[in-house]
Amino acid sequence: VTRLSARAVGGIPEVSAGDDLAALIVAALGEEPLGEGQVLAIAHKAVSKAEGAVVALAGVHPGARARELAARIAAEGGQQKDPRAVQVVLDESAEILRSERGVLICRTRHGFVCANAGVDASNSAGPDALVLLPRDPDASARKIRERLRTLLSGRRGEEAAAPAVLISDSFGRTWRYGQLDVVIGLAGMQPLDDWRGRLDAHGLELQATWLAVADAAAATADLARAKDSREPVVVIDGLERYLSTEDGPGAAALLRAPAEDLFR
Amino acid sequence: VTRLSARAVGGIPEVSAGDDLAALIVAALGEEPLGEGQVLAIAHKAVSKAEGAVVALAGVHPGARARELAARIAAEGGQQKDPRAVQVVLDESAEILRSERGVLICRTRHGFVCANAGVDASNSAGPDALVLLPRDPDASARKIRERLRTLLSGRRGEEAAAPAVLISDSFGRTWRYGQLDVVIGLAGMQPLDDWRGRLDAHGLELQATWLAVADAAAATADLARAKDSREPVVVIDGLERYLSTEDGPGAAALLRAPAEDLFR
Repeated sequence: VTRLSARAVGGIPEVSAGDDLAALIVAALGEEPLGEGQVLAIAHKAVSKAEGAVVALAGVHPGARARELAARIAAEGGQQKDPRAVQVVLDESAEILRSERGVLICRTRHGFVCANAGVDASNSAGPDALVLLPRDPDASARKIRERLRTLLSGRRGEEAAAPAVLISDSFGRTWRYGQLDVVIGLAGMQPLDDWRGRLDAHGLELQATWLAVADAAAATADLARAKDSREPVVVIDGLERYLSTEDGPGAAALLRAPAEDLFR
Repeated sequence: VTRLSARAVGGIPEVSAGDDLAALIVAALGEEPLGEGQVLAIAHKAVSKAEGAVVALAGVHPGARARELAARIAAEGGQQKDPRAVQVVLDESAEILRSERGVLICRTRHGFVCANAGVDASNSAGPDALVLLPRDPDASARKIRERLRTLLSGRRGEEAAAPAVLISDSFGRTWRYGQLDVVIGLAGMQPLDDWRGRLDAHGLELQATWLAVADAAAATADLARAKDSREPVVVIDGLERYLSTEDGPGAAALLRAPAEDLFR
């Protein structure tokens, strides 16, 4: 019987630029086991802050397009947007897909489609600071995994097997209300489980079935987390069948090629 | 510490029209507890089959539009589609949003946006049968919940509190590869958790945070299920904070009003 479980890790302090996030996580876990067969899911803000992917609005000079977009959003009755914040969103975007109803739907430089290019206000870094997505979230996941392997090996006195590392953000969806956590960076877990063409329990070919298992894991982690608490990290057990020693293709493999997308 | 867990329920037989699905689930659970504080997640096919929402292709006469769409899909190099199957999809649709690249993206009569209006081939019902979505999945969830309450009360000799009931289907997404289970019918669980305007652990107002917790639960359930096994039912523990004695607004509350949608 498969049993899936997820628990939030308490006691992780506020993260600042330059912090060794993997070390903070290992310290917070104490004697709780972490390793092979587990997924360590991290809300991206902790990763972004550790990497210094934070922008102070005071140093941003909005260009003409940012000022124009901010004015249009205000005119449409959307949430008031600081033109400097809009400039930061534009800097993070490869393409603006929609700017309606006070919302900017962007394709980020990485290829993610989400509101405001993933740029968030930071509660902890002050009202004047914005948190960006990590520069290369798959690389961030690989680095954290490698650092965990080193730290866990040291602790156990042997070469340790590292958990998979999953970095998530909350994205809105088309057609449905509410946000859902999805994976933006991944190492050591397959992002997709491809059953197309395989046979089912009846020996018949399964219909097109191509499961976004890493996104499902990100959604699971968010359910184990209380939004008002400082719990960026969740440990998931029970996904061994999707894990690998190799880092694998990362979350980039989840991004539909723009040319293949029916909704632009 | 929050701990979330999910386990698939084994031993549920193939479901046919007229079956008492709640009774089959209670029998399969045996002495395992089921009740208040738990979510019973059911893959929609089991519900559809029990309700007889199955169409035999032999009795379907494709109209002109179905034949035209089937021909266009074939010409575009998509998967060959039986014009009768296209007719069934049209019958289930309020609107066809896209018919490109061999895929029909539909808004169903219920308001769900998904490929083929949720119409699936049925492995068990034979190659000539298609399984539809339940007529009214929220009503299905409420009925199954009520029936569970009756069955569990009888078993315990007292008025039992029923688990929440969640009916899911696997939908593709815009911009990202792979399918993710989402909720299409719900009773006893809030679909959305609204943190907009609330304060965070720092006493500052949280950014727009509106979590689709029922969809996250559907994704969690699917991770606990092996796709090649007959495990339509998953029991989830650890979501007490989202559950209620009342059935609540159902999955219908997750459907973005078409007029509010930026992607049509």
